[in-house]
Amino acid sequence: MLLLHRAVVSALRQACRFRPPPSRLCIQACSTNESFQPQRPSLNFSGDNSSTRGWRIMGALLGFGTALAYHDHRCRASQESPPLYTKEEVYSHRSPETGIWVTLGCEVFDVTEFVELHPGGPSKLMLAAGGPLEPFWALYAIHNQLHVYELLTQYKIGELKPEDSAPPTLETSDPYAHDPMRHPALKVNSQRPFNAEPPPELLTENYITPNPIFFTRNHLPVPNLDPDTYRLHIVGPPGGQSLSLSLCDLYKFPKHEVTVTLQCAGNRRSEMTQVKEVRGLEWRTGAISTARWAGARLCDVLAQAGHQLSENEAHVCFEGLDSDPTGTAYGASIPLARAMDPEAEVLLAYEMNGQPLPRDHGFPVRVVVPGVVGARHVKWLGRVSVEPEESYSHWQRRDYKGFSPSVDWDTVDFDSAPSIQELPIQSAITEPRDGETIESGEVIVKGYAWSGGGRAVIRVDVSLDGGLTWHAADLDGEKQLPRKAWAWRLWQLQASVPAGQKELNIVCKAVDDSYNVQPDTVAPIWNLRGVLSNAWHRIHVHVTS
Amino acid sequence: MLLLHRAVVSALRQACRFRPPPSRLCIQACSTNESFQPQRPSLNFSGDNSSTRGWRIMGALLGFGTALAYHDHRCRASQESPPLYTKEEVYSHRSPETGIWVTLGCEVFDVTEFVELHPGGPSKLMLAAGGPLEPFWALYAIHNQLHVYELLTQYKIGELKPEDSAPPTLETSDPYAHDPMRHPALKVNSQRPFNAEPPPELLTENYITPNPIFFTRNHLPVPNLDPDTYRLHIVGPPGGQSLSLSLCDLYKFPKHEVTVTLQCAGNRRSEMTQVKEVRGLEWRTGAISTARWAGARLCDVLAQAGHQLSENEAHVCFEGLDSDPTGTAYGASIPLARAMDPEAEVLLAYEMNGQPLPRDHGFPVRVVVPGVVGARHVKWLGRVSVEPEESYSHWQRRDYKGFSPSVDWDTVDFDSAPSIQELPIQSAITEPRDGETIESGEVIVKGYAWSGGGRAVIRVDVSLDGGLTWHAADLDGEKQLPRKAWAWRLWQLQASVPAGQKELNIVCKAVDDSYNVQPDTVAPIWNLRGVLSNAWHRIHVHVTS
Repeated sequence: MLLLHRAVVSALRQACRFRPPPSRLCIQACSTNESFQPQRPSLNFSGDNSSTRGWRIMGALLGFGTALAYHDHRCRASQESPPLYTKEEVYSHRSPETGIWVTLGCEVFDVTEFVELHPGGPSKLMLAAGGPLEPFWALYAIHNQLHVYELLTQYKIGELKPEDSAPPTLETSDPYAHDPMRHPALKVNSQRPFNAEPPPELLTENYITPNPIFFTRNHLPVPNLDPDTYRLHIVGPPGGQSLSLSLCDLYKFPKHEVTVTLQCAGNRRSEMTQVKEVRGLEWRTGAISTARWAGARLCDVLAQAGHQLSENEAHVCFEGLDSDPTGTAYGASIPLARAMDPEAEVLLAYEMNGQPLPRDHGFPVRVVVPGVVGARHVKWLGRVSVEPEESYSHWQRRDYKGFSPSVDWDTVDFDSAPSIQELPIQSAITEPRDGETIESGEVIVKGYAWSGGGRAVIRVDVSLDGGLTWHAADLDGEKQLPRKAWAWRLWQLQASVPAGQKELNIVCKAVDDSYNVQPDTVAPIWNLRGVLSNAWHRIHVHVTS
Repeated sequence: MLLLHRAVVSALRQACRFRPPPSRLCIQACSTNESFQPQRPSLNFSGDNSSTRGWRIMGALLGFGTALAYHDHRCRASQESPPLYTKEEVYSHRSPETGIWVTLGCEVFDVTEFVELHPGGPSKLMLAAGGPLEPFWALYAIHNQLHVYELLTQYKIGELKPEDSAPPTLETSDPYAHDPMRHPALKVNSQRPFNAEPPPELLTENYITPNPIFFTRNHLPVPNLDPDTYRLHIVGPPGGQSLSLSLCDLYKFPKHEVTVTLQCAGNRRSEMTQVKEVRGLEWRTGAISTARWAGARLCDVLAQAGHQLSENEAHVCFEGLDSDPTGTAYGASIPLARAMDPEAEVLLAYEMNGQPLPRDHGFPVRVVVPGVVGARHVKWLGRVSVEPEESYSHWQRRDYKGFSPSVDWDTVDFDSAPSIQELPIQSAITEPRDGETIESGEVIVKGYAWSGGGRAVIRVDVSLDGGLTWHAADLDGEKQLPRKAWAWRLWQLQASVPAGQKELNIVCKAVDDSYNVQPDTVAPIWNLRGVLSNAWHRIHVHVTS
């Protein structure tokens, strides 16, 4: 029986390894979206890995209720007294040494032996090690099949103690207490405000990033907004009339859809920290994600309010409904010329991958500015105005700017540098992982590449010898219009590992259609805020003989 | 007397060194333009350094007739028999060892002692060493003062033999025989076709490059076109009517002016050659120049012919009136979206720096595509059409494309790479020169920086220690509109040379407003055609103690 499984699993695995799941699966996965219930605080868990109730509700919404029902039935039907474990005990089993345990519903499984057989690759299953499977199965609908549950049953070792299924209590004194529940796969860089990125091996699994693992960059607590009373204030031009738009008003504008990659200016900051200390969150390669956004075009809304493209330089200022204890809201601006250009496709977005925006991503309305740094895509949008100057927000004027490596906190003059708008060419390796041991023979290198300003990625060069020789990778992704390449390209290189090689220094660098390239090294682009970290991405792997 | 001179000259030199001449001077210089007389073959000299007659005519046009008349007078009035020299003898005196000789009119001067005293710096005067001063004085109108001639008189050593003033004869069997006369300051990379660049120290002397030293990139012989019979053929849309425009017809469109930097894709190719052989001309840092262009906007002309922006991708194809012996004309194309965008300011230019286009730069009409590689700025424009595909010209499809360093002439697939349109961020050092010996104390580093696609240069970092530490340079140049920064920034850094330092490894790198940067090294961007050479520019200088 195990042998048969091995054969089936091996075939499945081959299929998965060389062909990412079709985007249909992704769309299913995208419906895992906590913004379905934004007004029900009982769903706001504190992001504890062992909490599964929220995920079970989501599971039901996702349509794998049949499978969960099968489980509930098994839990009730169990006549013998199985060994009982706490969630802490499960959590302590996350490595081959301790054994690898996971939970599904009330059941606990020791999948140590199965990890290597996992059709999606061992690293994917390891993301769930020590915790519940539901959040991951919610992302990958392929698990929603009876034979998968039957296969898992072989590894059952016991059940969770009943008290470990109780929902966690809310901490109401905490301004972050009403923050939404998050997906446990996210690697958290900061809990309050919440900042987290998907792990590399999930990041490039799908061209469209499923909403629950889309990187999250919050500057403040997540506001809890009522879609029925929500109003978006559009300040009119001098002498004109301002607009106060309900969600329904916004829906009346022509609905515009566009696939856009968002990247935080701090993506890959952790590599800058290795050169010299910087101030900022330790983002690895995951502060970037791609979604299909839908909403009203900003140019249509501004036109309705009577705004026109002016001869003078002007800026569209955005204010969020998130604010700090002093009442200061998050804010940012973009040039009016971009806002008014229909070809720039700037959105007041209310949908992300076919769903209402998740709370972490700006429910009910956020700005999406294709080709521009994430910081300008203001979430929980409350107010839009046209001003002769850039936003006076801290995040426009005293942050998100680049400086020479020679500038430090004693000498920095924030007024001397322009605010980051379009981002430079970027790429990173997501597989294999840095430090991993791979088998000799062939290596598959995967990653992403993207450039700002609508510039298309035209080539990704990959080196296995630290940059001495290069191979052009295969590019994957949707066809994009010239000057409007708003979304990333995923890429892959299958290459032979030279015989006798004990280690590889794998490097990637991308080229955009303006033939801009990434710089070779980090130190010469180091800057005190650790933004714009786009040097060649380098990893080191060991090779078994 | 000499001491007095030294004091005056030293003061003048200080003034010149720290403050480039006001642009008023530049505009005067720009009127040195052989296209004044494009139909008079007697003005077509073969670019021989000793030919001064053409320059004398230009001199008269430039208004330094007074000074030349003073000279003619001196030549006639000379009663004694001065020593007579051939132009070859003069040409053999170009170094401190042989002595440094120059000519003005019929007179020969040994300026060896004066070189170090030259107010514009020794290197500027050295450009004229062994030949006539007129072409350089035509560029720098400041010489047009009687006291300058009087100063020079002190160094007179004799006169040119009369036969060395005769105009050279035309070689009519040569397809290049009718090519125009060129400025002797140009560093010639190829005579036939003519390809030449200004020397670095002249390149950044003025924000606007004077026409005679604007870099010249010809692919074929220069056509000799009659402005009265010239017609530009604009192919109409299917079912529409084509236009045949005379120069006067073109003048009737609204005249649009814009300052644009042009750069050849091969600029700085010589640095790629040092990594590994490439096919192409050995451009140094001078295949880039800036001019004020005027003409009809391409969008206006296309609209008059009935063209509209189409939903489908389309291209505007240009054909030159220059052709090879088989009749194949130079050709190139740009996307229709750029051509039809009034904000992209694509011109059918008939003026360069306030003058009719010089013959080498496309007389009577050329395309100017701001922010785009020089190869698309088709000169001697004959035909414009809108096509569903890019131009089938060799120069669009089989040249001017970038490839991975791993691609060689056996493996290259020209269809796999997009044609170069917008260029990446670029910068280079023009002063000091590589290998130069400078004095200890302070060093002034000068150069240019530019980026394609209308992206503004926001910073230039300069290092004196090979890239370990950096200083931000001072940027100079006209204010440019956002997204329309079509012209370069000149920059300058004044820095202390660390005490005891025997040599400096000076490096520059620029940043544009998309925060794109230059790559650190050449080898990883090497490509078989040697295009897109935009790594950090590095020079090495010696320091005297």
